[in-house]
Amino acid sequence: MISGAWIEEAKNRLEGKIRKTPLTYDSKLDVYLKWENHQNTGAFKIRGALNKTLSLETWEQERGLVAASAGNHGLGVAYTARLLGTKATIFIPENSVENKEKMMHEYGAVVVKVSGNYAEAEREAQAYAIKKGSTWISPYNDEQVIAGQATLGLEIVDQIDPFDASACIVPVSGGGLIAGIGSAFRYLHKNIKLIGVQSKNSSYFYSLYQYGSQKEVIESTSIADGLSGAIEKNSITIPLVRSMLDDFILVDEEEIERAIVYCYLRFGQTIEGSAAVPLAAILSHKISFPKCVLIISGGNIQLELLTALCERWKDMIIQND
Amino acid sequence: MISGAWIEEAKNRLEGKIRKTPLTYDSKLDVYLKWENHQNTGAFKIRGALNKTLSLETWEQERGLVAASAGNHGLGVAYTARLLGTKATIFIPENSVENKEKMMHEYGAVVVKVSGNYAEAEREAQAYAIKKGSTWISPYNDEQVIAGQATLGLEIVDQIDPFDASACIVPVSGGGLIAGIGSAFRYLHKNIKLIGVQSKNSSYFYSLYQYGSQKEVIESTSIADGLSGAIEKNSITIPLVRSMLDDFILVDEEEIERAIVYCYLRFGQTIEGSAAVPLAAILSHKISFPKCVLIISGGNIQLELLTALCERWKDMIIQND
Repeated sequence: MISGAWIEEAKNRLEGKIRKTPLTYDSKLDVYLKWENHQNTGAFKIRGALNKTLSLETWEQERGLVAASAGNHGLGVAYTARLLGTKATIFIPENSVENKEKMMHEYGAVVVKVSGNYAEAEREAQAYAIKKGSTWISPYNDEQVIAGQATLGLEIVDQIDPFDASACIVPVSGGGLIAGIGSAFRYLHKNIKLIGVQSKNSSYFYSLYQYGSQKEVIESTSIADGLSGAIEKNSITIPLVRSMLDDFILVDEEEIERAIVYCYLRFGQTIEGSAAVPLAAILSHKISFPKCVLIISGGNIQLELLTALCERWKDMIIQND
Repeated sequence: MISGAWIEEAKNRLEGKIRKTPLTYDSKLDVYLKWENHQNTGAFKIRGALNKTLSLETWEQERGLVAASAGNHGLGVAYTARLLGTKATIFIPENSVENKEKMMHEYGAVVVKVSGNYAEAEREAQAYAIKKGSTWISPYNDEQVIAGQATLGLEIVDQIDPFDASACIVPVSGGGLIAGIGSAFRYLHKNIKLIGVQSKNSSYFYSLYQYGSQKEVIESTSIADGLSGAIEKNSITIPLVRSMLDDFILVDEEEIERAIVYCYLRFGQTIEGSAAVPLAAILSHKISFPKCVLIISGGNIQLELLTALCERWKDMIIQND
């Protein structure tokens, strides 16, 4: 696990620079909801990117940051660079969503669109970082990034008093968030089960966890696009997650879509597909724990998509509390 | 003012039936934001409607509730009736927004669309209530409704510790919310300035406050539709608000629209026009207080409208924190 000392350091570094996001309890579902969609940049990723960057020497920070991401990690790195007065260069796949690209520009980042998919963007980004002497900020395969995400775990423990959650349900992509939250719980000696959720359509980490290999995974498009993509070989998150996870759940596209609409109709919160997978797991009764914490990891869904989903699932009746 | 005993009674009645909504601090604007868009039905109105109904005798509750409202008050009454297993009949003006009507239906209310405006809906609703022996639930001209809204003030004081807010900025329509919050602050001996905000396009209460009359008001359409309409003659909120308010601000349509978009882009929160007027007052620099509390009263904006506003104000740059 990531050490308590590193997690405390991360907390101190981020103090005053990120938002303490709300946590609410819903009595009907008997869940706590950690609303990380309220976070700067609309997602938790800023925690890891900012902590990693603040852990660098000043001269390293000044030589700029490089990332590959068309999503929240890219936003987090762009935001970090602006906050610290340095330069971010973000490589994005050619099929990226326009509004996040626009947001990265607004944060002052240089955005490079590659001809190819995420893997290609990552290759070009890493080559560029080496050439320029800039720092490559991994989205998950980095101890300081994970320590940053761990601050979300500290915050949860701080917000629930007395701490009575039995489990914490976390979206999984590269495993950085769940490894961070799990490390924070262990550090604080909290006996809370840790449940990962991923979409069926891109079940790389699930496959690694269940079968020890991701070779057999056949990927298809998912509305939880932030959770897509294969895991870096030998990523430090793999043993971390293996040692900490209690269960791993898959949810399908319909379940995720319905969870997005449910969250909007019942809580007035616009959340992205990746953030909806814990709620999808609960609403589809795939898991059930008293007073579990659902990590609502981000809110960056396009309004047009949310509108279309509300139309598609308009017959969904939200029962009374 | 509404007495502390009534406010405490309201708190006890609502306990476990409404949500404790989040309050966050934003360092850039130096404001606290009270996110009542997280509330059941998406707005604070449920507090007053539910408290009023719970204050009735059981036989009165069983004879049903009647209201006139195409908005959050109607939703609050419909929700209340469902929760308590009684019947709600909601009279709505002919030009009502379809999605709120649909929500009232989902809560099980009988919705009666009148041919005419809000005043006509109110007349028909009150006549219907008398004929049926049902209880007319006023949106603001009722001490128990105001005591319900006062619980929002209690919650704020409870959430900021040590309590360091200098002012609280509240949307004003009929004055029930601000009278309630002001009563709670006085009851708890909190010396917090109370600032009302209304849209220029429907400045009835402002006119009453400044000139003692609303006769000269010329109303035009406002995106803050929930704040529109003349004040009931001899409403108990008029002397209450007069005795408690420190200032009253008007904001125009452009300022409200920009506040809605700002709130979405910076906090990921979809809020309705009525809820955006305190933020509009701050962003347009019409008022400034250190650490003031902005009441974000509700989130029920149509997604299509929010999308259009984001397009209209797409050149608005959200500065970094």
